[in-house]
Amino acid sequence: MKKKPLILVTNDDGINAPGLRILIKLMHKIGDVFVVAPNKPRSGCSQSITINSIINCRQIKSKILNIKEYECSGTPADCVKIAVNELMTRKPDLCVSGINHGSNSSINVLYSGTMSAAIESGVQGIPSIGFSLLNHSWSADFNPIIPFVEKIVKKSILNKISPQTILNVNFPSSEKINGIKICKQAKTHWNEKFIKRKSPMGERYYWLSGDFIIEDNSEDSDEWALANGYVSIVPTHFDYTNYALINELKRWDL
Amino acid sequence: MKKKPLILVTNDDGINAPGLRILIKLMHKIGDVFVVAPNKPRSGCSQSITINSIINCRQIKSKILNIKEYECSGTPADCVKIAVNELMTRKPDLCVSGINHGSNSSINVLYSGTMSAAIESGVQGIPSIGFSLLNHSWSADFNPIIPFVEKIVKKSILNKISPQTILNVNFPSSEKINGIKICKQAKTHWNEKFIKRKSPMGERYYWLSGDFIIEDNSEDSDEWALANGYVSIVPTHFDYTNYALINELKRWDL
Repeated sequence: MKKKPLILVTNDDGINAPGLRILIKLMHKIGDVFVVAPNKPRSGCSQSITINSIINCRQIKSKILNIKEYECSGTPADCVKIAVNELMTRKPDLCVSGINHGSNSSINVLYSGTMSAAIESGVQGIPSIGFSLLNHSWSADFNPIIPFVEKIVKKSILNKISPQTILNVNFPSSEKINGIKICKQAKTHWNEKFIKRKSPMGERYYWLSGDFIIEDNSEDSDEWALANGYVSIVPTHFDYTNYALINELKRWDL
Repeated sequence: MKKKPLILVTNDDGINAPGLRILIKLMHKIGDVFVVAPNKPRSGCSQSITINSIINCRQIKSKILNIKEYECSGTPADCVKIAVNELMTRKPDLCVSGINHGSNSSINVLYSGTMSAAIESGVQGIPSIGFSLLNHSWSADFNPIIPFVEKIVKKSILNKISPQTILNVNFPSSEKINGIKICKQAKTHWNEKFIKRKSPMGERYYWLSGDFIIEDNSEDSDEWALANGYVSIVPTHFDYTNYALINELKRWDL
């Protein structure tokens, strides 16, 4: 790419999230930036799309010259769809999503709005990278990871990242980072616990809570990398076919 | 299984959807049935979970003796989580989701609430089957597919369906069905078109719309099966790792 790449920036924590603001600044150093992000936090919304309701989309003033920013009432997947098919005048060269406040490693990718935006970009034929920091705090320190975000985006462009490439990048929440590992999604699950409470009207309600269980400590997994101070990168796809089961099912004589 | 299997039934069209009602009746002939379904339609909600809000769950009277039914304010994934970890006294032997009013074949699986419930069951270690009919109408005729739903569930139990098995079953909307095909997820996409309108207050809003494009007509794909009058079954998994890209990324020297 001789001219500056056009980079679509989005997230799931919403247009005002500090992680998004940092990502916009970093991408501004690398390419032309176009922002479409949810107008409110959308954590845990997965690949939701808005089909039974309307979508609002409003341009807001960017603090950085020459950046177009839109806040959207839809989900992260909606943001990508409307950016690419309605708001942008040409297809972006890359989409980056995040930097998420909280982990999207291993099983968390299933529920992640951040990664759903990256996956939706892949569906639209646009290479994409989702970035997440293992720290939920709104005041998390993003400084230690900034050089890594820049490096990953620059190397992606240098290596002519293909439209089939969707990267799930997670950063450990530590001052010292040992490097970058290319990983597979670790086998993990949540031991769910529903916290029961009663409303002032006496009606029972629940909060979803739980403990995160790592079943797989193999050194090529994202959880191993993160636990050992490395940035994890999992190449991600959206063919959900479990090919290994096809022959078994054929033997069921259906 | 000598004793009757315990079957969790859920969906994304909501507790009153005709497709759910039919599935409950059919499962009642095969096993002990426990129902937890959303209290409103949740189409397109993907694997969303409710983490920033409370979840309500209320037992309702079932029209069938010995069936426990709950309506839940959460998403299909929430319904499975709360059913398995809070409401049910033992782990179900099988989860069935649907019968969805509308397709969840090929790329639609990414956005599907019906399939997210099936996938969530897989995450919880419970084999599962998502059923969808290629007809959005609330008054769709489910009669032609009833023998197939029964056959697929019975054969799944007979063949000792494993906790790793998640089936995405789609039915053509035709009176005559030619049989069942085990398939892969076809390569397809939506050509999105955003319909622009103005509110009475003069504010622009959008409806997500589009045309469905099949890129892949291979005879082992679900879209081929459906277009040719067959039931499609795609075994589905939740390891999103794109293993084919790992070695390429390692060469990027990150």
